[in-house]
Amino acid sequence: MGVDIGGTKVEAALVDARGRVVVSSQRPQGIQLTPVGLVEDLAQCLEQLGAAVPGKDIGAVGMGVAGQIDSATGTVHHSPNLAEWNRVPLRREVERILKLPTFVINDVQAATWAEWRLGAGKGVRDLVCIFVGTGIGGGVVAGGRMLTGASGAAGELGHTTLDYRGPPCRCGGRGCLEAHAGGWAIALRAQEGVVAEPEATRTILALAEGVPKGITAATVARAAHSGDPWAQRLVAEVGQALGAGVASAVNAFNPRRVILGGGVIQGMPELVDTVREAVQSRALPSLRTSVEVVVSHLGPHAAAIGAGLLARRRAALTV
Amino acid sequence: MGVDIGGTKVEAALVDARGRVVVSSQRPQGIQLTPVGLVEDLAQCLEQLGAAVPGKDIGAVGMGVAGQIDSATGTVHHSPNLAEWNRVPLRREVERILKLPTFVINDVQAATWAEWRLGAGKGVRDLVCIFVGTGIGGGVVAGGRMLTGASGAAGELGHTTLDYRGPPCRCGGRGCLEAHAGGWAIALRAQEGVVAEPEATRTILALAEGVPKGITAATVARAAHSGDPWAQRLVAEVGQALGAGVASAVNAFNPRRVILGGGVIQGMPELVDTVREAVQSRALPSLRTSVEVVVSHLGPHAAAIGAGLLARRRAALTV
Repeated sequence: MGVDIGGTKVEAALVDARGRVVVSSQRPQGIQLTPVGLVEDLAQCLEQLGAAVPGKDIGAVGMGVAGQIDSATGTVHHSPNLAEWNRVPLRREVERILKLPTFVINDVQAATWAEWRLGAGKGVRDLVCIFVGTGIGGGVVAGGRMLTGASGAAGELGHTTLDYRGPPCRCGGRGCLEAHAGGWAIALRAQEGVVAEPEATRTILALAEGVPKGITAATVARAAHSGDPWAQRLVAEVGQALGAGVASAVNAFNPRRVILGGGVIQGMPELVDTVREAVQSRALPSLRTSVEVVVSHLGPHAAAIGAGLLARRRAALTV
Repeated sequence: MGVDIGGTKVEAALVDARGRVVVSSQRPQGIQLTPVGLVEDLAQCLEQLGAAVPGKDIGAVGMGVAGQIDSATGTVHHSPNLAEWNRVPLRREVERILKLPTFVINDVQAATWAEWRLGAGKGVRDLVCIFVGTGIGGGVVAGGRMLTGASGAAGELGHTTLDYRGPPCRCGGRGCLEAHAGGWAIALRAQEGVVAEPEATRTILALAEGVPKGITAATVARAAHSGDPWAQRLVAEVGQALGAGVASAVNAFNPRRVILGGGVIQGMPELVDTVREAVQSRALPSLRTSVEVVVSHLGPHAAAIGAGLLARRRAALTV
């Protein structure tokens, strides 16, 4: 069972040896979820999904969690979606209660694993994945190995600096890529815009039924695609920022391929071309000529699939 | 023989099995050096150094070259110090003429190898080296392996974006770390300063004997250390920029240790504390608590030593 623990929902999927989702379920989740509450949720998911495939045993649990996760020890150091969690030994707790081999990893690292093994990165030895959702996460494959770093948190590309005197980030830093191009930052720019430029932002506000706080990145995408020039300009700025961030990653990691995924990319697919152009104008010549920028193949299920594959691997269900 | 091919000089050193420099020589070099001229230089170095250690054979040549170098093939894709070089198969040429096993690698990757094996990174499996000289280069050890990337150019941390709408960089990009904190950028800021603020920059100009073009990063360091407030402010700004760049690298690579080296760090050692503070205020909590920022142990010889060690390895002189 592969589980993707997101900010608003928990997705659980049974993943077979080829990485296919046999059956999956989703349940809403709030940021107040406790470790005990999560394990209870997982037990219910196990039961539900197990009942859907009679005669087959679920042999292992893999979990993708946003934040800084040390997969070597299965510890959640910090997760923006699990507010009060601090150095929670999640793997140990889940194994104790569910009695199944368990693997815990950063959600985007799980998605990167899935894209590398089965998706848009298949067969590539040097790969950077950047997933742009509410936040921005990254995963890196270097020389045919997943990069983990000293405590499992390598690839936090959403928190590389893009503008070191720029706007504050929710991580406590300043001018991070995420503070320019993450879903929360796009929504915040638009919410600030309706206050500062009420005339120019009428379309966006109308799409949010007149409630500024109701504006999300999806609202901005809808406005831009309906031809609203203010929203289009904001999307173009997001593209420039994202492109500069991806070009930095190209210079740092020298990948053969960059995979873009996540809800913001799905909602604003025009960002992909802007990123391609920025990489060609910003990355070093010998690095930009050897890299291609592509879109995630596995879409929103990538993290659950990757977590499931890694759980199988941990339990030696897949060689 | 380990060779460091810099912008203004070529340093050649005989390196023994323990990485000690037995004897070394330097010769001035201009940017106009051709591949043929370089091989001729190397032949002379070999002869000179060989004569200095009678009875010992030189068994291999290692070369550290600034720029994008593919060490797997020994090709110089681009080097800022070798202006007209473009995809030069340097290893093949050197091996053909000198008849010795040869290894060619980026100079900072060579220095990183030396620091990792013998210097400030000994025994560390996750390591980032940032060398701040005229330009800024990087080298990364991840999970106990040197990071090379798809074409040998991983670790170009001087060209990660720090300010995506910032000043142009000599790489053709914009707002790179190097364009804020590289020696050439520090000199340029001061040269611009003497035009824009002639009163405030009198000390700096006097130290350069009244010739604006004569101002270098070393001039700025001398002025700052003599108490000049304008120079001190510039050094503080360089520290902020460098700190933001190092914090980005911490978030991207999750290293246990960051090693700072190069002429600008040697000339302005106060930068190291500014970088430490910036990492603590900018990097993600679980990453900043597990990283330390230290200074290079091997100093200016690191690249030649690393190139020598790698040459020994390639020739299997050292297991």
